[in-house]
Amino acid sequence: MTPAALKTYLEARKQLVERNLDIHLPAAHRPPQRLNAAIRHSLLGGGGKRLRPILLLAAGEAVGGGLEPLLPFACALECIHTYSLIHDDLPAMDDDDLRRGVPTCHKAFDEATAILAGDALLTYAFELAATPVTGQPDGVVLAMIAQLARDAGIHGMVGGQMLDMQAENRETTLAELQNIHVHKTGALIRASCLIGARLGGGDEGQIQRLNRFGEAFGLAFQITDDILDVTGDATIMGKSPGNDQKHQKASYPALMGLPQARQEAELMVNESLTALSSFSASADPLRALAGLLLDRTH
Amino acid sequence: MTPAALKTYLEARKQLVERNLDIHLPAAHRPPQRLNAAIRHSLLGGGGKRLRPILLLAAGEAVGGGLEPLLPFACALECIHTYSLIHDDLPAMDDDDLRRGVPTCHKAFDEATAILAGDALLTYAFELAATPVTGQPDGVVLAMIAQLARDAGIHGMVGGQMLDMQAENRETTLAELQNIHVHKTGALIRASCLIGARLGGGDEGQIQRLNRFGEAFGLAFQITDDILDVTGDATIMGKSPGNDQKHQKASYPALMGLPQARQEAELMVNESLTALSSFSASADPLRALAGLLLDRTH
Repeated sequence: MTPAALKTYLEARKQLVERNLDIHLPAAHRPPQRLNAAIRHSLLGGGGKRLRPILLLAAGEAVGGGLEPLLPFACALECIHTYSLIHDDLPAMDDDDLRRGVPTCHKAFDEATAILAGDALLTYAFELAATPVTGQPDGVVLAMIAQLARDAGIHGMVGGQMLDMQAENRETTLAELQNIHVHKTGALIRASCLIGARLGGGDEGQIQRLNRFGEAFGLAFQITDDILDVTGDATIMGKSPGNDQKHQKASYPALMGLPQARQEAELMVNESLTALSSFSASADPLRALAGLLLDRTH
Repeated sequence: MTPAALKTYLEARKQLVERNLDIHLPAAHRPPQRLNAAIRHSLLGGGGKRLRPILLLAAGEAVGGGLEPLLPFACALECIHTYSLIHDDLPAMDDDDLRRGVPTCHKAFDEATAILAGDALLTYAFELAATPVTGQPDGVVLAMIAQLARDAGIHGMVGGQMLDMQAENRETTLAELQNIHVHKTGALIRASCLIGARLGGGDEGQIQRLNRFGEAFGLAFQITDDILDVTGDATIMGKSPGNDQKHQKASYPALMGLPQARQEAELMVNESLTALSSFSASADPLRALAGLLLDRTH
């Protein structure tokens, strides 16, 4: 996939996901207006790469699945990701002012509204995920809802955020840092790939390999995220860099230095590509996405 | 059902639900310990009537369904109810110190942990709800997950909480108050009855009647809740009364006076009983529960 083709592909997928979210979410003028306006502000008001839904759709594509049937679940992942950003940005958590290039939810509205907007988005994600998927038994969709809940919950994303909070202002080892990342960002990214593969109709081997791809991709993503926090430009990123230092959080660059962190990211990208080796050209978007991680600017 | 028989029944159901929650939730010593301890503190550390799971199981019983298959979904409702209490008690929301006779989650732990404990419980609810139900097609379970998400989300509980926040410190009409209650507490109580009826194998007519029962029951419950906030005893209630006045919130007693509010509650209890008229003795627990509302002390 050429860089130009990838750019067109990503833009088309992003628009597809955003159009679907826009259609399904209550309009901002519908009551309760303030809640709906806050949800739309955080979900659709800023940029957003829509990485998780795009990964889910691309994993489905890699195993020969269609786009349409996977869209509700793909949108569910974006709702979960966005709710986690809204809650993480709260004053009691990371206390951030800027996200996706616009004021954070509690800054644009207020704390109570931001808490409720997050709760509403998390709840709405499961309404979307509970949509029957053409060509798949309902039992498989049920199993994927349970999978999503596990990877977004105590043993996944929420648990990782808790570990992250507890690691602030104290020495953290590389093993601890990796454990935080595997849960906080890794679990949902891995789940996106696994769920796309399963709902797209992949066989057990394919599902396992795409799960492995997601695991390595997620870690590479987080390392490059840490690097961007040191080297990134606020205007391009849409959020304030330097957060890890501000909160005295451990990060790959802080623990191993920038050059070593970059090498580690490359290693993980290569591992993710290896997991795709038995796939045909249908996995090219996933391959291109992994390659893109090494040139991230946001 | 005699008062003694009802007491035994409720105690047995409460223990059944609590035992199941206890078995399924991660132990407090499992990492992340602080998160798991906070979840257990709010879910199992205080009293809790377990009204919503008991209603779900009783609605299932009313249509001849078994207990065991409905337990995961029943527990899911208690998780959703508890998460909503944790978030509602936060300083940015109702700012309460006492709940179910123990300190609120952010008081016993801290704000960030309370936000995450709520998020984890909401997420875990859907993991539980995604358990296949013996005797029911998976598609019915999927439909009930969507139903739960609707009634707990923007168009139900979360939306109602938003309306409630916006109604503070200003004149509220009776119609507005009713609208808040229908969403904030009514939706989840109604959903408990509807879902129990459907997963218990009820026919369309039974499901509709139990939905109507839940609607009237929910409103009666909220009116008696408002009355308790004026007349209740903190020791028995396990939370501080006088909250409506403290937050200058509209309430039935404030809008229509205590005697009229009591009459309104009676009217709703009678409506709920009417909805059950075509049911056999299998609906006796639901009838007894409705009768109990008029003698609430907590």
